Amino acid sequence: MLPSKLKVGVIGAGQLGKMLAEAGSPWNIEFHFLDVNEAPAQRLAYSYVQGGLKEAKAIRELASRCDVLTYEIESIDVNTLLELEKEDKEIIPSPKVLSIINDKGLQNNFLKFHNIPIPAFYLAKDISENITVLKSFKGENVVIKSCKGGYDGKGVEIVSKEKAISGYNPFGTDNTLYEECITDMQEVSIIVAVDKKGNYVTYPSVAMEFDPKINLVSFIYSPGGFESALENKMKEIATKAVKAFQSPGLFAVELFVHASGKVLVNEIAPRAHNSGHHTIEGAYTSQYEQWNRILLGMPLGNTDFICPAAMINLIGPENGSGAYELLGLENILQIEGVYVHLYGKKESRPGRKLGHITILADTKEALFKKAEKVRKEAVIRVL
Amino acid sequence: MLPSKLKVGVIGAGQLGKMLAEAGSPWNIEFHFLDVNEAPAQRLAYSYVQGGLKEAKAIRELASRCDVLTYEIESIDVNTLLELEKEDKEIIPSPKVLSIINDKGLQNNFLKFHNIPIPAFYLAKDISENITVLKSFKGENVVIKSCKGGYDGKGVEIVSKEKAISGYNPFGTDNTLYEECITDMQEVSIIVAVDKKGNYVTYPSVAMEFDPKINLVSFIYSPGGFESALENKMKEIATKAVKAFQSPGLFAVELFVHASGKVLVNEIAPRAHNSGHHTIEGAYTSQYEQWNRILLGMPLGNTDFICPAAMINLIGPENGSGAYELLGLENILQIEGVYVHLYGKKESRPGRKLGHITILADTKEALFKKAEKVRKEAVIRVL
Repeated sequence: MLPSKLKVGVIGAGQLGKMLAEAGSPWNIEFHFLDVNEAPAQRLAYSYVQGGLKEAKAIRELASRCDVLTYEIESIDVNTLLELEKEDKEIIPSPKVLSIINDKGLQNNFLKFHNIPIPAFYLAKDISENITVLKSFKGENVVIKSCKGGYDGKGVEIVSKEKAISGYNPFGTDNTLYEECITDMQEVSIIVAVDKKGNYVTYPSVAMEFDPKINLVSFIYSPGGFESALENKMKEIATKAVKAFQSPGLFAVELFVHASGKVLVNEIAPRAHNSGHHTIEGAYTSQYEQWNRILLGMPLGNTDFICPAAMINLIGPENGSGAYELLGLENILQIEGVYVHLYGKKESRPGRKLGHITILADTKEALFKKAEKVRKEAVIRVL
Repeated sequence: MLPSKLKVGVIGAGQLGKMLAEAGSPWNIEFHFLDVNEAPAQRLAYSYVQGGLKEAKAIRELASRCDVLTYEIESIDVNTLLELEKEDKEIIPSPKVLSIINDKGLQNNFLKFHNIPIPAFYLAKDISENITVLKSFKGENVVIKSCKGGYDGKGVEIVSKEKAISGYNPFGTDNTLYEECITDMQEVSIIVAVDKKGNYVTYPSVAMEFDPKINLVSFIYSPGGFESALENKMKEIATKAVKAFQSPGLFAVELFVHASGKVLVNEIAPRAHNSGHHTIEGAYTSQYEQWNRILLGMPLGNTDFICPAAMINLIGPENGSGAYELLGLENILQIEGVYVHLYGKKESRPGRKLGHITILADTKEALFKKAEKVRKEAVIRVL
């Protein structure tokens, strides 16, 4: 079918896969998904392989059904993908990217090698005999990260320098990374898209508004409102980091940014990202359409925002698990320029991403006001 | 599933059904479709009833699977729907609307009764003994319409007054409507949405740009650029016409408009409409999300356009039928603010609607320039 006869295989069928398939529906792209159980993207799949994301047989079965493979989650069987790539299967981004990104120690060393500014760090195994070097880090605390397998805040601890120097490495000497704890910089995300020919485009910065009461990201918005010199510097560093991987794909680069002009790369995700959901309604080309364009070998689309846009996550509350409902929906839909996305997950769990709401407005002030209103109305209630 | 447990049944699974389901995917709306064969919306259906659109058994089967019924095509079995409505099945719009709209003679008489301005008309059966009354029509020609079964330009002929007065009624005396032939007015469409409580909203006018070389609608655009007094008059007349039907639903009102302020209603479609496709990217609330909101009993959304938007149909060429491809896609996707929709129909036929392209721009001038460029690039080639 048009516009391309390429069949797309996606490892993982979560909300990112669902939104990829929604963006591909107007083009009738044939998607095949792999996931362990029922998952959000399943309803939109031409076919579905039920199997483990680290199961070689399942990944090979998916590969046999499609012309180009991609993934919406990092925690998958990279070795099988490396084998498939050697067998000339097209995989975007290249699994070589994953084999670096899936080990935070490797990722940091890779970025350092390519002269990308990152926070000061040490691997536990490198300094186990002289752990006191951690004293050189700024601040009172140290971030301890599991090199492998961390996800959505898991595998990360912030501890006092003292505790770290005492030799505390919760993830094991071979798997622990110590990083300087950045406290005086803003978290910003830049999405970079690279096509098969090596052309690239960057989305405007995504800034995060924190709720001081609960110390959580309250909502994100674009454009971030930075001075153009700083915005350009962020884009330049994000692009340089992504280019180092020498692979097509959609990449979200998380940055630490200081108004003084200092920019550090925190982490890179080789896929569409939570910080880009509001591109669906806010940008000329959503991150999901962009991802489809890359997979099909089509030209990259315009990344500009049509108007200021914000996004609020709908997260499973701490006080229970199971069936749930979204309260306030009718009130939310009465607000103009508000878009509700639900991922169709049957059960809520504490911290589980169940959906998000995009908000459009003419000005940043109006955007913040509306976002605050939506945040108050949108309540997930476990039944 | 959220936001509503209402299951939606749709009679007809063409492109309108497909785009309704695409708009409903972020809400996980459970759609069940009925159509004769494979059809564009089928891929997005929770279940699919394969059967005739005028087959009572098939319609009752669909009804049994859902809580609320709607239709994306008029040419269906209205009697079964009237029975189902009596049995308390929720059907939007009410099938009573269809029983009027499906007979152009009834529709004209209904609109006339409600003091809606329409072109002068006579039913053949009413004037068969004094056909010379057609002399009173302005102009040299007369429009002859089949009261029943006309669709997409079929069932309509324009003939000389002389020929009509000679008694020419190609659709039979009982089924022929003579209408004044309007030549000096612009064709405009206004979409009106009515919720279950009787609240309504109107979309900005949709104007049509004609290509003088081929005498066909080249593209449509919004806002139509009329003076606000005329725009308001169009909205007022369209709303009055729709309100006369006393039913929730999404309605497209086709108008004839003259710069002097004269406005006539041409026809009404009780569903999403080709003239509203560009609301998907151009308006805050697309006609398809609006339709979903109505079906689920949610508040109506903002109908304003975010920026000027145009739409070009991708139509099967006259010179053949069968498998086809869209040429120029790569060039089209290099233009900023362009959105390609393909309906996934396997075969082209002359005049068949195979897809459309939406174009966004900051100004009307830029919009026209881009639309012209897209129109030249987008070529359907039968293989």
